[in-house]
Amino acid sequence: MFEITTQMIQIFAIFIAFLALGFAAWLYTWVKSQPSSNARIAEIGEYIRKGANTFLKREYLVLARFTAVAAVLIFVLLPHPIWKGDITKNILMAVSYIFGTILSALAGKIGIQIATIANIKSAEAAQKGIKPSFMTGFRGGAVMGMAVVGTSLLGITLVLILVQDATSLLGFSFGASSLALFAKAGGGIFTKTADISADLVGKVELGIPEDDPRNPAVIADNVGDNVGDVAGMGADLFDSNVASMAAALVMATALGGIASKNVIMVFAYAAIGLLSSIIGVATARIGKNGDPNKALNSSTYVTTAVYAVLTALTTYLFGFEWRIWGATAVGLIVGTIIGITSDYFTNDNKPPVQEVAKASKSGPAFTILSGFSYGLLSCLPALIGIAISALLAFKICAPLGAVTGQEAEYGMFGISMAALGMLSIVGMIISNDAYGPIVDNARGLAEMGGFGEKVIAITDELDSAGNTVKAVTKGFSISAAGLTVISLLGAFMSEVNTAAQELGLVAAGESLIKNFDIMNPTVFFGLIVGVSIPAIFSAMLMLGVDKNAQRMVAEIHRQFDTIPGLKEGRGDAKPDYDKCIDIATTGAIKELIPAGVVAIISTIAVGLIGGAQAIGGFLTGNIASGLLLALLMSNAGGTWDNAKKYVEAGNCGGKGSVAHKAAVVGDTVGDPFKDTAGPSINTQITVVSLVSSLLAVIFLQFSIF
Amino acid sequence: MFEITTQMIQIFAIFIAFLALGFAAWLYTWVKSQPSSNARIAEIGEYIRKGANTFLKREYLVLARFTAVAAVLIFVLLPHPIWKGDITKNILMAVSYIFGTILSALAGKIGIQIATIANIKSAEAAQKGIKPSFMTGFRGGAVMGMAVVGTSLLGITLVLILVQDATSLLGFSFGASSLALFAKAGGGIFTKTADISADLVGKVELGIPEDDPRNPAVIADNVGDNVGDVAGMGADLFDSNVASMAAALVMATALGGIASKNVIMVFAYAAIGLLSSIIGVATARIGKNGDPNKALNSSTYVTTAVYAVLTALTTYLFGFEWRIWGATAVGLIVGTIIGITSDYFTNDNKPPVQEVAKASKSGPAFTILSGFSYGLLSCLPALIGIAISALLAFKICAPLGAVTGQEAEYGMFGISMAALGMLSIVGMIISNDAYGPIVDNARGLAEMGGFGEKVIAITDELDSAGNTVKAVTKGFSISAAGLTVISLLGAFMSEVNTAAQELGLVAAGESLIKNFDIMNPTVFFGLIVGVSIPAIFSAMLMLGVDKNAQRMVAEIHRQFDTIPGLKEGRGDAKPDYDKCIDIATTGAIKELIPAGVVAIISTIAVGLIGGAQAIGGFLTGNIASGLLLALLMSNAGGTWDNAKKYVEAGNCGGKGSVAHKAAVVGDTVGDPFKDTAGPSINTQITVVSLVSSLLAVIFLQFSIF
Repeated sequence: MFEITTQMIQIFAIFIAFLALGFAAWLYTWVKSQPSSNARIAEIGEYIRKGANTFLKREYLVLARFTAVAAVLIFVLLPHPIWKGDITKNILMAVSYIFGTILSALAGKIGIQIATIANIKSAEAAQKGIKPSFMTGFRGGAVMGMAVVGTSLLGITLVLILVQDATSLLGFSFGASSLALFAKAGGGIFTKTADISADLVGKVELGIPEDDPRNPAVIADNVGDNVGDVAGMGADLFDSNVASMAAALVMATALGGIASKNVIMVFAYAAIGLLSSIIGVATARIGKNGDPNKALNSSTYVTTAVYAVLTALTTYLFGFEWRIWGATAVGLIVGTIIGITSDYFTNDNKPPVQEVAKASKSGPAFTILSGFSYGLLSCLPALIGIAISALLAFKICAPLGAVTGQEAEYGMFGISMAALGMLSIVGMIISNDAYGPIVDNARGLAEMGGFGEKVIAITDELDSAGNTVKAVTKGFSISAAGLTVISLLGAFMSEVNTAAQELGLVAAGESLIKNFDIMNPTVFFGLIVGVSIPAIFSAMLMLGVDKNAQRMVAEIHRQFDTIPGLKEGRGDAKPDYDKCIDIATTGAIKELIPAGVVAIISTIAVGLIGGAQAIGGFLTGNIASGLLLALLMSNAGGTWDNAKKYVEAGNCGGKGSVAHKAAVVGDTVGDPFKDTAGPSINTQITVVSLVSSLLAVIFLQFSIF
Repeated sequence: MFEITTQMIQIFAIFIAFLALGFAAWLYTWVKSQPSSNARIAEIGEYIRKGANTFLKREYLVLARFTAVAAVLIFVLLPHPIWKGDITKNILMAVSYIFGTILSALAGKIGIQIATIANIKSAEAAQKGIKPSFMTGFRGGAVMGMAVVGTSLLGITLVLILVQDATSLLGFSFGASSLALFAKAGGGIFTKTADISADLVGKVELGIPEDDPRNPAVIADNVGDNVGDVAGMGADLFDSNVASMAAALVMATALGGIASKNVIMVFAYAAIGLLSSIIGVATARIGKNGDPNKALNSSTYVTTAVYAVLTALTTYLFGFEWRIWGATAVGLIVGTIIGITSDYFTNDNKPPVQEVAKASKSGPAFTILSGFSYGLLSCLPALIGIAISALLAFKICAPLGAVTGQEAEYGMFGISMAALGMLSIVGMIISNDAYGPIVDNARGLAEMGGFGEKVIAITDELDSAGNTVKAVTKGFSISAAGLTVISLLGAFMSEVNTAAQELGLVAAGESLIKNFDIMNPTVFFGLIVGVSIPAIFSAMLMLGVDKNAQRMVAEIHRQFDTIPGLKEGRGDAKPDYDKCIDIATTGAIKELIPAGVVAIISTIAVGLIGGAQAIGGFLTGNIASGLLLALLMSNAGGTWDNAKKYVEAGNCGGKGSVAHKAAVVGDTVGDPFKDTAGPSINTQITVVSLVSSLLAVIFLQFSIF
C-alpha cells in the first residue's frame, strides 16, 4: 500500500488535465491538416463559421453583462455580506465565479472553433469513404470532449489549491452553471428556430430536400447545430461535471477537511475518468466499411472498462475505501443500464419507435399521442435506476460513518460518488455528442456542395449513428445530473449547518437542520412550488422557439416570394442567408434571459418566504418534476425523430405518405422537446441547487416563516 | 352557545343527505315530465341509452370480479391478518369496502339513467328557446350532483355510526376510489376512442358535420359522453368527496376520539356544503334570452356565499374553533382563485387560447408546441395556490395543538379541512359538470333529428357554456384532490403509528414515525419511484385510447367503403352503430384493468422494499408528478379544444383553413389529455394513498430495508 497526499493527487490531476489538453491540441492539428479543396464547400463552411461566431459574440456580450452584475452581487453578499467584515473571502468567491464563467465560455468557443473546421473536412473525406470521414468527425468531437473535461478538472483543482475552501468551489460551479444555463437555452432556441423553420417551409411546404442551398434558412440551420448542439451542450456537460465534483468535494471536506483521504479519492477518480476517456478516444477505430455505431459504442465500452479497472487498482494500491469505489461502480453500472433503456425507447429497431410510426398512418394526432405516451413510459426505468443507485450508494457508504456517527453524511457522500461514477466517462460522452452535429453539418455540406448520392449516403450513415448515440448519452447525462442534484441537496444542508455555526445560531459542531421533513408544511410548501419551476422554465423556452420560428417562417416565405428564380433554383438567385441567421440570433438572445432569471428569482423568493426548510422542499420538487420532464421530453423527442427516419426508410408508406407527413409533425414537436427544453432542465436544476447553497447564509437570516 | 353531540350532528347529516336525495328525485321527475314527441330523436336516444347501459353492465361485471378478489384479500389481511385473531374487524372492513364500491357504482348508474333522458328532453326543449333547454340540461345534471353527494354523505355517516372506527372509513373510501379508478379509466378510454375516431374520419377526412347520423361512430360518441363524462366523472367526484371526508375524520378521531368536537365539525361542514349546493341548484335561473355561462357561474357563487355564511354562523352558534373555520375558508377562496386562473388559460377570450390559434396558422406542430407550453405555464398558479393553502391551513390550525403538543397533528387536520372547504360545493360542481355532456348530447340529437340551424345554434351555446365551466371545475377538483392526498399523507402517518402501537413496536401513546425525512435515502428512493407512477398510469391510458381508436377508425372506413350509399347519405343506407359501440366497449374494458393494477402493485412493491418511510416518499412523489401532469393535461386539453372553437368561429382563417386543420389535430391530442389521462390521475393518487394507509400494518412487519 502506498501513501499519497492531497498535493500529490492534485499535481496528478493537473498533469492528466494537461495531457487531455495536449491531446486535444494534437487532435485539432490532425483534423485541420486533413485535405480540403472544394471551393463551394469552403464558401458555405465560411458562412457557417461566421454565423456561429457572430451569434457567440452577441450571446457572450449579453452574458458578460449578466456575469458582471452577478459578480458584484456575489462580492457584496457572499459568503457573508461585506458589511460583516472580512472581504477576502468575498473577493475569492467572486473571482471563482468569474473564473467558472470564463472557462465555460471557453469550452463553448473551442467547440465552435473545431466543429466549424471538422464539418468541412469530414464532408470532403466522405468522398474517399466512410473511414476517413468518420475519423475526422469523431476526432473533431474528441477535441471538444478532451478540452471540456480537461479545463473542468484543471479549473476545479486550481480553485481548490488557490482558495483552499470548498465553498468557493460552489461559486466556481455556479459560474459554470449560470453560463451553461443561458448558453444551452440560447443555443437551444437558436438551433430549433432554424431547424424547424427550414424543415417546415423547405421539406413540408415546397418538398425540396433537406439542406437544399435554395432554402434561406439552411445556413442558419447548420449554424444552429454548432451553437446549440456543440457550444450549448459543451457548456452543459462542463457544468454537470464541475457540479458533481464540487458536490463531492464539499461533502468530502465537511467530513474530514481539505486534506482527507476522501478528497484525494475524488481527485483520483476524476483524473482516472479523464485518463480513461483519453485512452477510449485514442483507441477508437472503424473498419474500412465498418459500422460507425459500433465504433462509437465500443470506444465507450473501452473507456468504461479501463475506468473500472484503473479505479479498482488505485483503490487497492492506495488503500482507499472499497465501499466508496462500490458507490462509484453502482453509478457507472446504473448509468449504462439507463443508457440502454433510453436506447430501447428511441431506437428504430425496437417496438416504441415502430409503433409511433404505425400510429402515424392515422394522422399527426396519433403520432403525438403515442410518442408522448412512450416518452412517459420511458421515465420509469431511468427513475427507478436513479432511485436504486442513490439508495444503494447511500447504504454502501453509510457504514463508513458508523464510528463517528456520520452515517448520513457518508451516505450522501456515497451518492455524490455515484454521480461522479456516472459522469466518469464524460470525456467520452462529450466526444460522441459533439461528433453528432459535426457529421450532421458534413451531410449538409455534402448536399450543398453537390457531392452526389453516394457521398451523401455515407454522411447519412454517419449522421444516423450520431443520433442513436445521442439518445444514449442523453439518458446518461440526465441521470447523472439527477444524482448530482441529490448530492447538492446534501451539500445545501451542510452549507446551512456551517452557516448556522458561523452565525452563532448553534454551537460549533452542532447542526441546525437535521432533516427536511415532508410533513413540515414549510418543506411541503417549497416542494409543491418547486414542482412548477422546471415546467415554467421549459414552457418559456419552447414558447421562445415557437414565436421565433413563426418570425423566421414568415421571412423564408418572403424570400421565396420576392426573390425571382429562387424557388426554381436559377443559378443567379441567391437567398439572403444572413437575414435568417439574424432573426434566430436576435430571438434567441431576447428569450434566453427571462427563463433563466425566473428560475433564479423564484429560488430566492422561496428562500426568503420559507427559509432553509422551504428550500429543502423546493430543491426536491425541482428534482422530481425536473427529472420527469427532462426524461419525457428528451426521449419523446428522440422517438419522434427516429419514427420519422423509420418512415423515410420506406416503412408505413415511406416518404410522401400520410404517415410521413404525420411523422414530420412529430419530429417538429420533438425538436424543441429534445434539443431545447429537455436538456436545459438539467442545468436549470443544477443552477437552482447551487444558488440555494450559496445563499444558505442569507436565507437563515432573512425569512418570513 | 348551543351544545351539540356527535349523534345529533350525524342525524342532521343523514337528514340533509335524504333532503338531497329527495330533491334529486323531484328533479328527476321534473326532467322526465318535460315534453318529447319527435320519433327520430326518441329512436336515437334509445340507441344511446342502450349503448351506455350495455357498456356499464359489461364494465361492472368485470369490476365485480375485481371487487370480489379485493374484498377477500381485505378480509384476510386487514386491518390485521386473520390468523392474528379477531376477525370481526376484518369482516367490517371488507363490508365497508364493498359498500363503498356499491355506492360508487350506484352513483354512475344514476347518472347514466338521468343523462340519457335529459339529453332528449333538452334537445326537444331547445325548439322552444334557450331557457327551457338550459333548465332541462341543468336540472338533469343536478340530479347527478345531488345523488352523488347525498349518497357519499349518507355512506360515510352510516359507516361511522355502524362501525364506530375511522379506519374502516378508509376501507369504504378505498372501495369508492378503486371503483372510480376503473370507471374513470374505462369510461375515459371509451369516450375518447369514439370521439377521436368519429371526428377523424367524419370531420377531417370526409368533411361531414359533427354528429352527422351517417357516421357509424356517432352513437358511440354520444354514448361516450355519458359513460365517460357522466358516469366516470360522477364516480371520480364521489371518490374525492369521500376521501376528503375520510381523511379529515381519521385525523379528527386520532386527535380526540370519535365523539370529539372536531368530528362534529367535519360532519357539520360537510352537511352544510351539501345544503348550500341544494340552495344553489334550487335558485339557478336563466333569463329568457340569458347567458347560460352566467347562470352556471352565479349559482356557483350563490353556493359559495351560502356556505361561507352558514359555516360561520354554525361556528359562532356552537362554539366551534374559528381557526378550523379559517382553514376551510382558505380552501374555498384558493379553490375559487385556481378556478379563475384555469379559466384564463382555457377561455377563448384570453391570450393563451388566441396565441395557440394564431400559432396554428404555421401548422399542427406549432399548435401542439404552444398549447403544451401554455399547459405547463398553467400549472404555476394552481401549484402555488395549493402550496399556499396547505401552508396557511397548517399554520392557522397548528396553535390549537399548542397545549397538548399536537401542533403537527392539528396542522395536518387543518389541511384536511381546507380540502373539505374546497370540496364543500362539490354538489354544485358535479351538477355543472354533468350538465356538460347532457347538452353536448342534446346538440348531437338536435343535429341528428334535423331540428334546423336555429335550434342547433341554441344547443351550441349551451354546449360551449358547458365547456367553459368544465375547465373551472376541473381546476377546482384537481386542487382539492391535491389537498386531500396531502392530508391522506397525514392519515398514513397516523395509521402507521397506530399500527406500531398495536404491534407493540412502540409503547402506547408513542410514535414510531415522527417525520419523513427527504435526506433519508429510503424516503428519497420512494419519492423518485413515486414520480414515475402517474406518468406510466397516464401513458397506459393514452396508449389504450390510441390503439382502440386505430381499431375503430379502421371499422368506420370499412363501413363507408362497403355499405352502398352511406357516404352519399342515401335514406336506406344505415351504418352499423352497434359495431362501433362494441369496439369501444371491448377495448376500454381490456385496457382499464392493467393501468389501475400497475398503480396498486407498485405501491405494494415499494412498501415491501422500503417500508413505511419509502411509502411516505412514494406518496409525495405521486403527489408531485400527479398534480403536475393532471394540471398540464387538463389545461392543455382545454386550451386546444377552445383554440379549435375559436378558429371555427371565424378567426385565423376560420373553418377549412390551415389553422383549422392544425387546431383539429390539437383538439384530438387534447381529448385524451383532458378527458382520459388528466382527470384519472386524481383518482390514481387517491387510490395509492388509501392503499398505503390500509396496508401500513403490513409494511411495518414485512419490508426489506
